[in-house]
Amino acid sequence: MNFKDDYSIGAHPLVIERIVSANETLEASYQHDSYSKEAAGLIKEKISNPNALVRFVAGGTLANLLVIAASLRPHEAVISVESGHINLHETGAIENTGHKIISVQGNEGKIIPSEILKVLETHNIPPHTVKPKMVYLSNSTELGSIYTKSELKEIAEICKMNNLFLFMDGARLGMALSSKKNDLSLREIAQLTDAFYIGGTKNGALMGEAIIINNEELKTDFDFHLKQKGALVAKTRFFGAQFLGLFKNDLYFELAAKANQKAEELKIVLKKHEIPLKYPVETNQVFPILRNVHIDELKKKVEFYVWESHDDEHSVIRLITNWQTSEEEIKEFDQILSALLKN
Amino acid sequence: MNFKDDYSIGAHPLVIERIVSANETLEASYQHDSYSKEAAGLIKEKISNPNALVRFVAGGTLANLLVIAASLRPHEAVISVESGHINLHETGAIENTGHKIISVQGNEGKIIPSEILKVLETHNIPPHTVKPKMVYLSNSTELGSIYTKSELKEIAEICKMNNLFLFMDGARLGMALSSKKNDLSLREIAQLTDAFYIGGTKNGALMGEAIIINNEELKTDFDFHLKQKGALVAKTRFFGAQFLGLFKNDLYFELAAKANQKAEELKIVLKKHEIPLKYPVETNQVFPILRNVHIDELKKKVEFYVWESHDDEHSVIRLITNWQTSEEEIKEFDQILSALLKN
Amino acid sequence: MNFKDDYSIGAHPLVIERIVSANETLEASYQHDSYSKEAAGLIKEKISNPNALVRFVAGGTLANLLVIAASLRPHEAVISVESGHINLHETGAIENTGHKIISVQGNEGKIIPSEILKVLETHNIPPHTVKPKMVYLSNSTELGSIYTKSELKEIAEICKMNNLFLFMDGARLGMALSSKKNDLSLREIAQLTDAFYIGGTKNGALMGEAIIINNEELKTDFDFHLKQKGALVAKTRFFGAQFLGLFKNDLYFELAAKANQKAEELKIVLKKHEIPLKYPVETNQVFPILRNVHIDELKKKVEFYVWESHDDEHSVIRLITNWQTSEEEIKEFDQILSALLKN
Amino acid sequence: MNFKDDYSIGAHPLVIERIVSANETLEASYQHDSYSKEAAGLIKEKISNPNALVRFVAGGTLANLLVIAASLRPHEAVISVESGHINLHETGAIENTGHKIISVQGNEGKIIPSEILKVLETHNIPPHTVKPKMVYLSNSTELGSIYTKSELKEIAEICKMNNLFLFMDGARLGMALSSKKNDLSLREIAQLTDAFYIGGTKNGALMGEAIIINNEELKTDFDFHLKQKGALVAKTRFFGAQFLGLFKNDLYFELAAKANQKAEELKIVLKKHEIPLKYPVETNQVFPILRNVHIDELKKKVEFYVWESHDDEHSVIRLITNWQTSEEEIKEFDQILSALLKN
Repeated sequence: MNFKDDYSIGAHPLVIERIVSANETLEASYQHDSYSKEAAGLIKEKISNPNALVRFVAGGTLANLLVIAASLRPHEAVISVESGHINLHETGAIENTGHKIISVQGNEGKIIPSEILKVLETHNIPPHTVKPKMVYLSNSTELGSIYTKSELKEIAEICKMNNLFLFMDGARLGMALSSKKNDLSLREIAQLTDAFYIGGTKNGALMGEAIIINNEELKTDFDFHLKQKGALVAKTRFFGAQFLGLFKNDLYFELAAKANQKAEELKIVLKKHEIPLKYPVETNQVFPILRNVHIDELKKKVEFYVWESHDDEHSVIRLITNWQTSEEEIKEFDQILSALLKN
Repeated sequence: MNFKDDYSIGAHPLVIERIVSANETLEASYQHDSYSKEAAGLIKEKISNPNALVRFVAGGTLANLLVIAASLRPHEAVISVESGHINLHETGAIENTGHKIISVQGNEGKIIPSEILKVLETHNIPPHTVKPKMVYLSNSTELGSIYTKSELKEIAEICKMNNLFLFMDGARLGMALSSKKNDLSLREIAQLTDAFYIGGTKNGALMGEAIIINNEELKTDFDFHLKQKGALVAKTRFFGAQFLGLFKNDLYFELAAKANQKAEELKIVLKKHEIPLKYPVETNQVFPILRNVHIDELKKKVEFYVWESHDDEHSVIRLITNWQTSEEEIKEFDQILSALLKN
Repeated sequence: MNFKDDYSIGAHPLVIERIVSANETLEASYQHDSYSKEAAGLIKEKISNPNALVRFVAGGTLANLLVIAASLRPHEAVISVESGHINLHETGAIENTGHKIISVQGNEGKIIPSEILKVLETHNIPPHTVKPKMVYLSNSTELGSIYTKSELKEIAEICKMNNLFLFMDGARLGMALSSKKNDLSLREIAQLTDAFYIGGTKNGALMGEAIIINNEELKTDFDFHLKQKGALVAKTRFFGAQFLGLFKNDLYFELAAKANQKAEELKIVLKKHEIPLKYPVETNQVFPILRNVHIDELKKKVEFYVWESHDDEHSVIRLITNWQTSEEEIKEFDQILSALLKN
Repeated sequence: MNFKDDYSIGAHPLVIERIVSANETLEASYQHDSYSKEAAGLIKEKISNPNALVRFVAGGTLANLLVIAASLRPHEAVISVESGHINLHETGAIENTGHKIISVQGNEGKIIPSEILKVLETHNIPPHTVKPKMVYLSNSTELGSIYTKSELKEIAEICKMNNLFLFMDGARLGMALSSKKNDLSLREIAQLTDAFYIGGTKNGALMGEAIIINNEELKTDFDFHLKQKGALVAKTRFFGAQFLGLFKNDLYFELAAKANQKAEELKIVLKKHEIPLKYPVETNQVFPILRNVHIDELKKKVEFYVWESHDDEHSVIRLITNWQTSEEEIKEFDQILSALLKN
């Protein structure tokens, strides 16, 4: 049973179908193929911005390092919560492009407006302090939480007032937008951010993330950066086809909603067993606090990550659901827990 | 009619089949899936080196910048011919990782042993001159030529004697090894180089290059670099499946041989029309010298790149064939030329 | 009256004398001059390590970025306290060389062994997490505190056991070693660290820091990095002469002791006025907590930095003394405070 | 006897005097001291541009990497002749900041307008080719030649028309402007370039180069880059004082003229002995072609660099003069040659 991640499964059959049929034709390369163009058009339509620049790349780390390095000058830094993917789980990819990440504590994985203001205040000895120039946030976050409209608006306003770019890592944007708590639309996200991306890999695709750049300034020469970072592949039809599969008929949101639903069910199971949660369940990630001895037992039957130590006897584990997670798996997990806790 | 490149077509049907069937199972991610492991095993068998490190990445530029940056310290440089892909057509990707490319003239796209020795000689004022530490070469080269066994051996010996890594860009390795002129085996290439890669994108795959590292020293921590450069994708099964498709039953070489054969036929057509060639035709690239007025006409009917100016009235164009190039296309090209030259 | 920094004054007259007399002769360049060699020899003698590599550079930031970039591979990171100079006041210089700084809280400016162990523990998902490979610490720290022998030994042992380099920023090493609390010798510092530097700029020199590398591995090719970062000047006699001036007859420690002494006197003045201190006074930095209204008044007569906010009504200011700070200045400061606090 | 370089001697006594007297006062740090301000003012007056940004750094490589990295985005490249200092003798410093150097042949060390145009022509496949964005040239060049007004104007026009920055490395600008062949003024150089620097180290100073930025766009945030690259020293008075010494009463040009004059005398001696020159003598560098056997002999008595091989039996050596080169040295060199050639 796999609650380790949302990328151990394959792509959705409709996505695979698209890949297969896109294989037949002769296509221009390097994002000029008809599939990429159609998929980009579809996305631009959904965000109501015909001037957006849409580019497809193979993975999230590549999307992050590309957008950040393309946006900043060497002395400019990006602000992120400590648990941010770029800060913790990308092997220093951003720093390797020459830029400092200024990390702040955050709350349940989300950056807090006052933290941004505090960073601006403490980085005020030019030229000895770096120049904060971008806010990076993930939606949903690495802890499963999501940004509400009012939260994102407030952050976007602070960014605008302080000449900071706002960049959203959307590796799990589907889950965020399909959350029951969500009140943001894709269009609003496009309006509030300078750049963001829509993650395919974790929600129905084989691989691929769609980068959307709304800020005119950031569009300039972006393709040079794309090529320089090795992110420009020849047969982009492969990405275009997948995003057509995901965004025609809103399959993308349907799959994400399924994943979220299963997390909700996991939450109910955990509650039944009186297992406390470290963070509220808002998308497809669940962080129960378990006794270390139970974790060792559980590991024999279920795949998951031990996220962090809680206290001497307890740790937080991470359970992730996906659109393929079945009712049977939830039931079985319930039974495993029952057996476990009986001892 | 498309003689512009070898990546405007899709993947081979058998490769697509593999992708489809690899989609079904639950797989470990990040190169730990069963398909990647099986494909890596197959490659290691073919090169008779069970200790090689095999990793799959999305494209050639990514493979190049990854291997070079992972191998060199900041003050170490890589030697390449001027026409080398890393030197001319990767937007400064190598320099962007902090390393100098020392470019030499080369002959028909190939690096000449004496040029390597000359670079060592002229970079002899430590610490004011960079330290040459790697030789980069492409096989087949950007001009369609290939390295013979004796040529590669001589270069490898110079590298060994001078403490230089030897890295082969194999974006079109299939075509090189399937050339009529070729006397090298995949195993010999693995023995003679410290690292090389087998290009899938230009020969039957949708996207994917297989990096093979033979030098123990270069294997250390390689996966950190892979992740840091954004080259590590989650669902590596997609790459593994494709390389299984390509290397089971040697489809890879069969496809390359077909592409080469069509180039040979193009050459015959050109010879018939008494059109001179800039470089010998050894793989799937043909470089005829045409009058500029004819080039303008030809462009209306055929897709190709104008490679370089030859003299005031002539230019060199590049024609590329692939495994899908048909007899009809060759015939039609012949007829177009006939019509063109009549005027 | 200047308590803003310890580099608004010139060099010590004996140092200037050395510069003047070193100007006469014809000297080899690039660290091969007789003065640099003699100064390096003197330092190597003092640390009892004839095999150390000693190099002189113009400033502290240059020393830091040079040593760190020369020591680490791209995926390797350096651990520092948040208040560390490299983390806060060098405009992202380290990140600009491609390396992540993992920052930890620290205690009074000093890194705590358990924090290092915690970093190792949380960076344990290779290859997704960077590889911690170096501990950076300043002695004295940016908050004026110093490391005791037992503290440094414990850190050095953790480093050794965990394959981490230990690098000491000694921009104010003189003050540390001349502190009344100090029980470390220059020799012990050389034994316990892989690399460190002795700051001249803030203690008697015009400009210049002496980098000392003890670890054999880090000595290899160091001069290439020195040149590549622009840190190798032609007429290194200028640095050599200054360090001869500073280390003959231990002028360096004499000057630092004077600076520390004046800080001690400042502390007594502040105590008299019942002004609390944020950090203990161990070297030449004093951090009193003052009412914001008083700070505004004080600024009219004294130069200093406002270090950080303490609460809504108070802030911490930084007062720095140097070897030229006079008894009169201390007295005048006392009087200014008296006048200030009367209101 | 030393003809190896122009930095084995100390600084001019008047420069030393300035350093000594600048040592007395309390001065603001980081380029805000009164000496730096006065020196900057003097330079701005001489170039008739009160809006120029003037900054002082310790060496030429630092000046080059700083200006280039501060001016370019990652995908932008700098064009230089092959013999350019940044291309050959700075250990890949420019590439280490992430930027490609596109090297061209040049003529006698000078870049030729047609070569710039050719680079623009061959880098025309965006985004696969880097974007040429700056022309780097040295005046005098690494081969001792200088740019005439008409040559520089033509290059500047090409740069303007093609949106390229023009940057002049002035490590030996004094010698260029004091050449008998020169028809350029400092003011014209400032008008024609976007940035340049005036080298102190090789012409009268102990160390220090004055960077002058005329282009408004390049002035923005320059000080952040200055700090980030480790080029900002605390006691900038040391640089300011030296440049005051050099530019008050035009000592700078007087010294350079002396160095040039001695090279002229060396040329006459060489002509007398019928020794051919590789390049015309325009400043303080002389490149005679000597028999290898003679070079070996000469080395026993004179210090110089062997520059490059000429043919199997001959090599080119480099002789450099400076403002301290004496008539006696020229005479002695003449006698040594006489003795040498007799055999």
